[in-house]
Amino acid sequence: MTKTNPGNFFEDFSVGQVIDHATPRTVTEGDRALYGALYPTRFALPSSAAFAASCGLDGAPVEELIGFHIAFGKTVPDISLNAVANLGYAECRFHRPVATGDTLSTSSEVIGLKENSNGRTGVVWVRSTATNQRGETAIDWVRWVMVHKRDAASPAPETVVPELAPHVAPDDLVVPSGLDFTSYDVAAAGEPHLFGDYEVGERIDHVDGVTLTDPEHMMATRLWQNTAKVHFNTEARPDGNRLIYGGHVISMARALSFNGLANAQLVAAINAGSHVAPAFAGDTVYAWSEVLDKAEVDAPGVGALRLRLVATKGRDESMTLRGEDPKTGRPAYAAGVLLDLDYWAFIPAGSP
Amino acid sequence: MTKTNPGNFFEDFSVGQVIDHATPRTVTEGDRALYGALYPTRFALPSSAAFAASCGLDGAPVEELIGFHIAFGKTVPDISLNAVANLGYAECRFHRPVATGDTLSTSSEVIGLKENSNGRTGVVWVRSTATNQRGETAIDWVRWVMVHKRDAASPAPETVVPELAPHVAPDDLVVPSGLDFTSYDVAAAGEPHLFGDYEVGERIDHVDGVTLTDPEHMMATRLWQNTAKVHFNTEARPDGNRLIYGGHVISMARALSFNGLANAQLVAAINAGSHVAPAFAGDTVYAWSEVLDKAEVDAPGVGALRLRLVATKGRDESMTLRGEDPKTGRPAYAAGVLLDLDYWAFIPAGSP
Amino acid sequence: MTKTNPGNFFEDFSVGQVIDHATPRTVTEGDRALYGALYPTRFALPSSAAFAASCGLDGAPVEELIGFHIAFGKTVPDISLNAVANLGYAECRFHRPVATGDTLSTSSEVIGLKENSNGRTGVVWVRSTATNQRGETAIDWVRWVMVHKRDAASPAPETVVPELAPHVAPDDLVVPSGLDFTSYDVAAAGEPHLFGDYEVGERIDHVDGVTLTDPEHMMATRLWQNTAKVHFNTEARPDGNRLIYGGHVISMARALSFNGLANAQLVAAINAGSHVAPAFAGDTVYAWSEVLDKAEVDAPGVGALRLRLVATKGRDESMTLRGEDPKTGRPAYAAGVLLDLDYWAFIPAGSP
Repeated sequence: MTKTNPGNFFEDFSVGQVIDHATPRTVTEGDRALYGALYPTRFALPSSAAFAASCGLDGAPVEELIGFHIAFGKTVPDISLNAVANLGYAECRFHRPVATGDTLSTSSEVIGLKENSNGRTGVVWVRSTATNQRGETAIDWVRWVMVHKRDAASPAPETVVPELAPHVAPDDLVVPSGLDFTSYDVAAAGEPHLFGDYEVGERIDHVDGVTLTDPEHMMATRLWQNTAKVHFNTEARPDGNRLIYGGHVISMARALSFNGLANAQLVAAINAGSHVAPAFAGDTVYAWSEVLDKAEVDAPGVGALRLRLVATKGRDESMTLRGEDPKTGRPAYAAGVLLDLDYWAFIPAGSP
Repeated sequence: MTKTNPGNFFEDFSVGQVIDHATPRTVTEGDRALYGALYPTRFALPSSAAFAASCGLDGAPVEELIGFHIAFGKTVPDISLNAVANLGYAECRFHRPVATGDTLSTSSEVIGLKENSNGRTGVVWVRSTATNQRGETAIDWVRWVMVHKRDAASPAPETVVPELAPHVAPDDLVVPSGLDFTSYDVAAAGEPHLFGDYEVGERIDHVDGVTLTDPEHMMATRLWQNTAKVHFNTEARPDGNRLIYGGHVISMARALSFNGLANAQLVAAINAGSHVAPAFAGDTVYAWSEVLDKAEVDAPGVGALRLRLVATKGRDESMTLRGEDPKTGRPAYAAGVLLDLDYWAFIPAGSP
Repeated sequence: MTKTNPGNFFEDFSVGQVIDHATPRTVTEGDRALYGALYPTRFALPSSAAFAASCGLDGAPVEELIGFHIAFGKTVPDISLNAVANLGYAECRFHRPVATGDTLSTSSEVIGLKENSNGRTGVVWVRSTATNQRGETAIDWVRWVMVHKRDAASPAPETVVPELAPHVAPDDLVVPSGLDFTSYDVAAAGEPHLFGDYEVGERIDHVDGVTLTDPEHMMATRLWQNTAKVHFNTEARPDGNRLIYGGHVISMARALSFNGLANAQLVAAINAGSHVAPAFAGDTVYAWSEVLDKAEVDAPGVGALRLRLVATKGRDESMTLRGEDPKTGRPAYAAGVLLDLDYWAFIPAGSP
């Protein structure tokens, strides 16, 4: 009994602590194919080795979210097995493409702790770093989770709340080595809209919807070796439903965003993310995007868009983000909002 | 809003128009494995690299239908996003095996147009060609679809109905370079029946049945980057059912046909195909074949069978193809027929 | 009709008969990814090419059960298509790791026959051997199945019951060439417990549960080209349920056993196995293990644990294996037990 991993409780974390997470994981062509079977993704760069080469990239990069989910999944047994809630993400940067054959390992440093006033839970901030088999940083990010205390009587640690950037600054975006969009093939990519065609404040309705199923989200979540039981076990929740891994909704929304953002080929950074409401099998997910910012990038033919990606349950014709809480009347997310993600993407700048 | 692809309407097509479809797609070992997980296929040649080599083939060819579905999926956003119905296929030839690592791109030429008498829809004929990363033709085929007009008031185009071969002539079948069945291993392939053992007119009951599920057909359809919303979204149809991609039934029937046609290793051509009735999750698919023709082939030890492959919903013990329409009393497909496909397959000729 | 495979009946088997099973099958990275999507497996060695190399292994070995299921699936059309029941396994040894790119073929020798007293069925024992494309033995095992007679009037064959080892002797375990656990990375593997930390008689509750679904078990079973109709066809059983392939429960339980046995990296042998009760979609599978024996192994840093792996339907807090039959009051498996598997695993011996 004592040999199984009970996960860490709030008392087990201390600021400065470094945790090397288990199970290095080699990324394969099988992961790419399964990702394409589970999400309606059609971005040309990870879909085609020939297209990636035409954009100056060596090897066969997979979608950034494949690397992210794998790297994130590693942290679950140590960080969030006893989590009450995943509170947020910040400062997530993709430092170099992950290609098939790469092996990812993840470690995390605890950078903040704050016990909640109820004395039964606390918030833990960690900065996690995924490295490849050459020891190069592939991805890093901060997330914070609310974790149960083992014992409400344990004394509270000193409160340390890390200072986090509200979003990754354009100068901190890392352009993949060799990326060159000067001979970008718009027809092959599927849409004509490039950097210059998007305006800050513009909203794009991605139109399509996908109804979620249990086997699909379980397969996705297992693929990332994410083992939180609420995703797999109908006996783990009183309502008998399997809670869908938030990353499944992120990937679904990103894939849906192809329709209107087909040239936003690479995710460069994730600035913030909120899983506003849980998703379950039977929900139909739609997505819309808002252009939050635009930035020049120091690479040939490359620009960056800062995008808000919102996933909703049911078609939200008005693309409303804000509503009010029906009980309190206070500002809140509109009904049906599942995800509010803020990220940077690289996109061809278009002709000069 | 305006950035999403609304698809083409009947008015957007003109005879002679060439459309380069988006998203080149690299075929991987992940596709092969997923195909094997989704369909009960056991043909030895695509299953085993060693068996393929023993048949004179370089590389690791995947099943012809993998290439076909990928190439076909590329055409959907441009050709059939606003289709009322997929009316037929003709002249589909497999020019060379698709191997893992190959990148397929598809373009289509409009070869026919005919407005329907109701003024609201029209029929579009396209010849589509999939080429690999070396620019070689991998597959080409003609299909015709009924498409909505954007505006019923638009003038009708000149009617052009292409002349299509009723079936691919045996001399037009392309034998894969190097294919040699003279040292074919019948035990490894799974059945003793070779070219000489099949008679024109013979019917083969493939016995086995598979009950369809939603997650499986959605995964298959996404794998081919086919994004027609009726396959994925329970809110897209009044009955709340996801319509199953016709190609899913083709692949299921072809896989079931192993039991009785295990040596029909390679699909050489598709002469015609009709999706007679829609399929939904819960339907149990069975298949039977009829030998329509036989042909000598100019390659060592290779013959060709022309086969009708019929998929039915529920077990049709009598293997009936024709019945009558219960309302009109006129000849029609028998109840339960889902698919009527006419194709050529290469099979070992057997000892001389 | 006569071209489809009716399977063998009891009368078709004779002691000494050798059957070469159809469809050689190349193992790919797609198989590894699908296995990881279908089972919550996290063993570091097959998960990471880098970790496998650090353990002295060339190439990229896949989990032993991938090889086993593929090799086993080959035998189904010839051995157990008309089986009433899969009665047992014995003497299963993994002779060398199966790596991606390997092609497996299987043949079986009939080593025992015994007609049942009812005259309608009989038991067939076969020793099956899977070889790779170099002709090397990868896996061999004995299983026995109860098979229908074609005709109850057929005379009974001479009874031959093979003598089988109650379990594989430690000296008969085959250590993979090069395996060296002396620089084993416990942090990467996920748990600190090594050979010396396990006591004979100890029980380990693996805690986690997974609720089964139909699409997932069908995909798994097809992946192994196992075509027994009861797994796929709701019309094949009076209750309309798809019976889950017993190997699906084995793989699920083995994957769940990571939590408490994360360092039992390689399955070395299967001594015995019983599918105690059938499993269906909706069942939630849990697992627990008991240490049956421990053995020194002649390889650097390597020990072996003999483990009982029990899968249950529903959480069995008491980890009870034995109960009594509610009808007869006689000793029987406890309610809820699905699987009772006895196997050897290689595990790092730990510091000397």
